[in-house]
Amino acid sequence: MRIDKSYSEKIMAQTLLEHTGLDETVVMEMVKSAPLRQCQKDEVIQLQGEPPQVATYFIISGCVRQYTSDENGKEITVRFYTEQTPINVSTFLDKDGLSHFSLSCIETCILAFCDDLEDDGSNDPPEIQALEQLFFRKQFSEMQVGLSDYKLKSPEERFQAFMTDQPELFKRIPQKYLASYLGITPESFSRFKKRFGS
Amino acid sequence: MRIDKSYSEKIMAQTLLEHTGLDETVVMEMVKSAPLRQCQKDEVIQLQGEPPQVATYFIISGCVRQYTSDENGKEITVRFYTEQTPINVSTFLDKDGLSHFSLSCIETCILAFCDDLEDDGSNDPPEIQALEQLFFRKQFSEMQVGLSDYKLKSPEERFQAFMTDQPELFKRIPQKYLASYLGITPESFSRFKKRFGS
Repeated sequence: MRIDKSYSEKIMAQTLLEHTGLDETVVMEMVKSAPLRQCQKDEVIQLQGEPPQVATYFIISGCVRQYTSDENGKEITVRFYTEQTPINVSTFLDKDGLSHFSLSCIETCILAFCDDLEDDGSNDPPEIQALEQLFFRKQFSEMQVGLSDYKLKSPEERFQAFMTDQPELFKRIPQKYLASYLGITPESFSRFKKRFGS
Repeated sequence: MRIDKSYSEKIMAQTLLEHTGLDETVVMEMVKSAPLRQCQKDEVIQLQGEPPQVATYFIISGCVRQYTSDENGKEITVRFYTEQTPINVSTFLDKDGLSHFSLSCIETCILAFCDDLEDDGSNDPPEIQALEQLFFRKQFSEMQVGLSDYKLKSPEERFQAFMTDQPELFKRIPQKYLASYLGITPESFSRFKKRFGS
């Protein structure tokens, strides 16, 4: 499968035009300069403990999983990223510049490489900086709510809430990853699915 | 107790000078223009479900707790904020502009009111925008690690990690709030304390 460059550029341009006041010619120029890469299903694009290659990915198509594991090999899923979402890899870094998290593609993905690690974004046009800020705030808000929901809800309640609030993702993401995201054993997950699933 | 304005200004100026390349006269001018407020121990400065009064608080002294509760009255603690830390209240908002979270002072606090709700910060000097971005990224990183640690660790491991990694906060914060932050019942908390405490 080859990357459909004009489709990818259209998706990126759409996001930029929707959220910024930038002129279409400026947007098209920016979009054309972002390197694209196709990643295979199950490909690991960032490994925990390694320095990242890029500061930000932007997902054109596909779904990416952020996860981490402890010294005993226990693995949990932190979040899922889908179309038209940036992944701020630069926020994954520990004090030595190594990533706390791994990223892998749940599906075949097309990703745009948006920022170099050396580029802190301060030379971007103000509209782009504002857009990055907007996405960033949104993800920060979602993460706070996600964390408090995780603490407040029982595994059963987390299952029900995810199934109700994000039915598309619920169908799209393999059961084992959903279970490790929701902090539910695969056995309980199957049980809940039987009880609450349609 | 009156607010020690010159001390407060010194603390704020110190943070700004440390993290920005701004000139001292510019810093002092900014610092002098930020309204200060003293809040009492146990005072609730933001109520869940209410619109916020300010977009950002900056803590001069004291400790603030961010928490939320569900419809059954079950309450959990999301995080603690201490000296020289901003609280991004604008990231607490739901789609109707109401706060997902409450904030209360664990100790007598002195807070600076940094941004109006109407002011999105785009008129701030670039150095201040960069500083806000820096704090924001730091909190975002910490929250991701906090969320993944919470998922990975057992209640007992969470207790031990907090006691080891943040001994000052461990001593400073009342046991009931620490327990609701760590997702541990007060009974287990006492048991762990007896077992691991010195």
